[in-house]
Amino acid sequence: MRKSVCVLGGDLRQVTVKKLLEEENFKVTAIGISEEETSLDKMKKAEILILPIPVSTDGITLNAPFAKNKILLSDVIERIDKNCLVLGAKMPKDAENTLKNKGIAYIDYFEREELIIQNAIPTAEGVIEIALSEMPITLFESRVLVVGYGRVGKVIAEKFKALGSKVCVSARKCADFAWIREKGLKTVHTDSLEEEVSEFDLVINTVPAEVLSENVLKNVRSDTLILDVASKPGGVDFEAAKRLGKNVIWALSLPGKTAPITSGKIIKETIMNILSETEV
Amino acid sequence: MRKSVCVLGGDLRQVTVKKLLEEENFKVTAIGISEEETSLDKMKKAEILILPIPVSTDGITLNAPFAKNKILLSDVIERIDKNCLVLGAKMPKDAENTLKNKGIAYIDYFEREELIIQNAIPTAEGVIEIALSEMPITLFESRVLVVGYGRVGKVIAEKFKALGSKVCVSARKCADFAWIREKGLKTVHTDSLEEEVSEFDLVINTVPAEVLSENVLKNVRSDTLILDVASKPGGVDFEAAKRLGKNVIWALSLPGKTAPITSGKIIKETIMNILSETEV
Amino acid sequence: MRKSVCVLGGDLRQVTVKKLLEEENFKVTAIGISEEETSLDKMKKAEILILPIPVSTDGITLNAPFAKNKILLSDVIERIDKNCLVLGAKMPKDAENTLKNKGIAYIDYFEREELIIQNAIPTAEGVIEIALSEMPITLFESRVLVVGYGRVGKVIAEKFKALGSKVCVSARKCADFAWIREKGLKTVHTDSLEEEVSEFDLVINTVPAEVLSENVLKNVRSDTLILDVASKPGGVDFEAAKRLGKNVIWALSLPGKTAPITSGKIIKETIMNILSETEV
Amino acid sequence: MRKSVCVLGGDLRQVTVKKLLEEENFKVTAIGISEEETSLDKMKKAEILILPIPVSTDGITLNAPFAKNKILLSDVIERIDKNCLVLGAKMPKDAENTLKNKGIAYIDYFEREELIIQNAIPTAEGVIEIALSEMPITLFESRVLVVGYGRVGKVIAEKFKALGSKVCVSARKCADFAWIREKGLKTVHTDSLEEEVSEFDLVINTVPAEVLSENVLKNVRSDTLILDVASKPGGVDFEAAKRLGKNVIWALSLPGKTAPITSGKIIKETIMNILSETEV
Repeated sequence: MRKSVCVLGGDLRQVTVKKLLEEENFKVTAIGISEEETSLDKMKKAEILILPIPVSTDGITLNAPFAKNKILLSDVIERIDKNCLVLGAKMPKDAENTLKNKGIAYIDYFEREELIIQNAIPTAEGVIEIALSEMPITLFESRVLVVGYGRVGKVIAEKFKALGSKVCVSARKCADFAWIREKGLKTVHTDSLEEEVSEFDLVINTVPAEVLSENVLKNVRSDTLILDVASKPGGVDFEAAKRLGKNVIWALSLPGKTAPITSGKIIKETIMNILSETEV
Repeated sequence: MRKSVCVLGGDLRQVTVKKLLEEENFKVTAIGISEEETSLDKMKKAEILILPIPVSTDGITLNAPFAKNKILLSDVIERIDKNCLVLGAKMPKDAENTLKNKGIAYIDYFEREELIIQNAIPTAEGVIEIALSEMPITLFESRVLVVGYGRVGKVIAEKFKALGSKVCVSARKCADFAWIREKGLKTVHTDSLEEEVSEFDLVINTVPAEVLSENVLKNVRSDTLILDVASKPGGVDFEAAKRLGKNVIWALSLPGKTAPITSGKIIKETIMNILSETEV
Repeated sequence: MRKSVCVLGGDLRQVTVKKLLEEENFKVTAIGISEEETSLDKMKKAEILILPIPVSTDGITLNAPFAKNKILLSDVIERIDKNCLVLGAKMPKDAENTLKNKGIAYIDYFEREELIIQNAIPTAEGVIEIALSEMPITLFESRVLVVGYGRVGKVIAEKFKALGSKVCVSARKCADFAWIREKGLKTVHTDSLEEEVSEFDLVINTVPAEVLSENVLKNVRSDTLILDVASKPGGVDFEAAKRLGKNVIWALSLPGKTAPITSGKIIKETIMNILSETEV
Repeated sequence: MRKSVCVLGGDLRQVTVKKLLEEENFKVTAIGISEEETSLDKMKKAEILILPIPVSTDGITLNAPFAKNKILLSDVIERIDKNCLVLGAKMPKDAENTLKNKGIAYIDYFEREELIIQNAIPTAEGVIEIALSEMPITLFESRVLVVGYGRVGKVIAEKFKALGSKVCVSARKCADFAWIREKGLKTVHTDSLEEEVSEFDLVINTVPAEVLSENVLKNVRSDTLILDVASKPGGVDFEAAKRLGKNVIWALSLPGKTAPITSGKIIKETIMNILSETEV
């Protein structure tokens, strides 16, 4: 089994990945996760290369906020050995193509089902933190609408219910309605949001499509908080929300912000799953 | 039944009390809860006087952060009609004595059992907010110690369990241990904290007596957060904690900070209970 | 929309379907759900025909335990009007083919996702009833293994956890493990049952394939109860279990036994969903 | 510390107490818990005597259903050594007086707070078993009224809520209402049962005083199940209930019936607590 790892760039999550892999007896080299000198030469002997989430924020440099110097992504790609297994998240398309052309194995750990599920937990906790900080009422007995019943919606709905909120979930499918009801939650059809939205103190969107359109937003109460956790393009007509004076927060990438160490741990566990599957 | 109320001083909680009493068809006069001129003359006709929590922060002036001018507590006391029912919280002893000598009925709504229980909810939510904001790990699967199983300890323990924390509660009595276990929580004897405290990521104290002494603090891990919600004198040897470099937050009066509107609602409901009992 | 319904055969579930449809202003005729004379002539004008679950227990007669006389399934099939919508469950293959050849629409309501999900609830309650009745220990703090994390396994695991059991779920997929853990449950790989099974007081199988093989059964403790709720062929090597003297109960069709009225209600709601989809 | 124990009479609970005490390295003699010859001579050397729950069912013989022969309680009392610590439950008054007059220490383990709390769990599970067995609807989404919010009422309410029932608790005190609401349950004042009782599918009484009087019973629906778990005299006007044709079950002593082994374990743990307190 591959045992020599290079952790390259990233934030506290990558630092955690490094520490936890060392505890599993991997031989780990780190570049660009501290103020120390960053020479890419150390990449050479790595059998596994772990790139950060996201690999790059600008498409040109490596995402390495703790590094002393900027590191060009192209410099990294160039130095990757043909037999190296590359793990990363949201790699720029051109870099990914370069790897493919060279015949280098690349796996996006952020697309793994078990990581997405586990990440829903710090996402939900981040939502709770924002709601507690922004709202002048308790979550207990507050009326909360969760739009969407995918992985993130499921976990958010469950946690607000656990805190005593009166939770309603919007969905479209009979089977989803059956599950939502089985969890002791109320249901509303997504097509009826316009009529129902005014009764909620907090609206949490998890759907990356414009569900909270101008017509829905019009009926949101002025003292209601709207929290959008959907990735781009989000689920709110932000321009209309601004015009209507609605209280909207678009909270992205919550796991890394709310719980970087747990997020790192989740990435590490996912990497272990990937390795156990590829190393058969 | 008394129907004429004067709400005097206080913050958003008192504003909420005023609003909710109006919705119950009380005739409500307010003094010192906005920037408007504050004449105490408006107190005159009130059958019920509602003072803020606390009545005074300095023992001299009324606690009225939203008021344009300072209001002397003695001026208020002097003007209270003999037949008025006075409701307040943590009234300075001398003012309370003056009322008693005049034969004026005074009830501290903050000592009512139902208010203390209901306030445990925003207190617990405030603790969750701080923990989420300060800790780099998720509350889910974190190891949490709750010291004390009174009203606040019960609610905090339950809410952290609901969020997936591994909760252990310290207590001393067999009956408390039976209840704690019935709730699916672990137990530890308060006398054993010194030996057990090192395994927790978060320690929440609810006991207003020095339970977290220097000997206990010594064994708290450096990455552990200590949150003290006990009223004065608190439950932590703060001096020792500072010396030992432990991470301690003493969080007081959380309900008014985290959820002022819900807190106001709880006060209003308690006042309604008091009125229904006194007006038989 | 079709409004004329004939409910034909079945038990308390069909009686409930009849009653609830009447409350929705359907015109309902019933045949064979009471001791009254059963003439199939009443079928004639029905636009919707609702057959019982299962349609037949012997392949020849209609499943109509409350009927005065036996009703031949072939007599029923023969009388169905070409434009009638037929709803039933587990129809014998040859009868289903006859309908198809005649161009008559037939829908099996028991294969609808929302019914399967909702039926998992009375199934889980039936399991709880048997466990409470058979075991000399409380479910609280008992160690329970749920084999399989499909719809029924999910609901059973959740309900036993809610009652304070220490629940472990066996599965095979990383994503399932992530969900199981998110629910606060322990996980075990189905391939490791042989080594782990001895620590459980109750083993509940939900997988319709021989997971509890002789090798696994050998390690089940003599005071452990094994409850199999998987449909045929079940998940237990029953012959080996008998030989080894293990305590096995194969509990089939729990919803209709434990909660016939709720089961009828679920069928009725599913029928309403089917109608709303077919009647666009 | 006393180490020589005699377990005398009783059912599977006493058998369990014997077994568990042996595991704690007590020297245990048993009389009358099996078909073997029962000579009271074996009592002689015991420092601790453990009598069954209840000590006697007829006031004359020892409660020893598994014994070959009848054992007179007076024979037992007579043979107890002056220095022996006697533990029992619901001892007939005259026998208790005899012990007192002889200066023999007697403690009723069934009056210990921690035992009463822990026993509420098998009581609640027994209630669930009966409800599941008797009712044709699921507990999920059924409307359940729990009368009384003492130790048993608290645990029953919590467990039905955990199973998805819509639970309402009747009480009289503001503080109880605050706790009930904090648990996410609905409240009703016990004085309003007459008006409210008709909306429930299941009524569970825990109050040993006639709360379910004829006037209340009149309004109970005919398809509602009434379960009384209050000890004598119970909380139902049984005569009126019979006359009105209401469906009432008076379920007494559930822990010993539903979960005798767990009940024995609870008794053993309580005995350990008693010993640790008396042996300082």
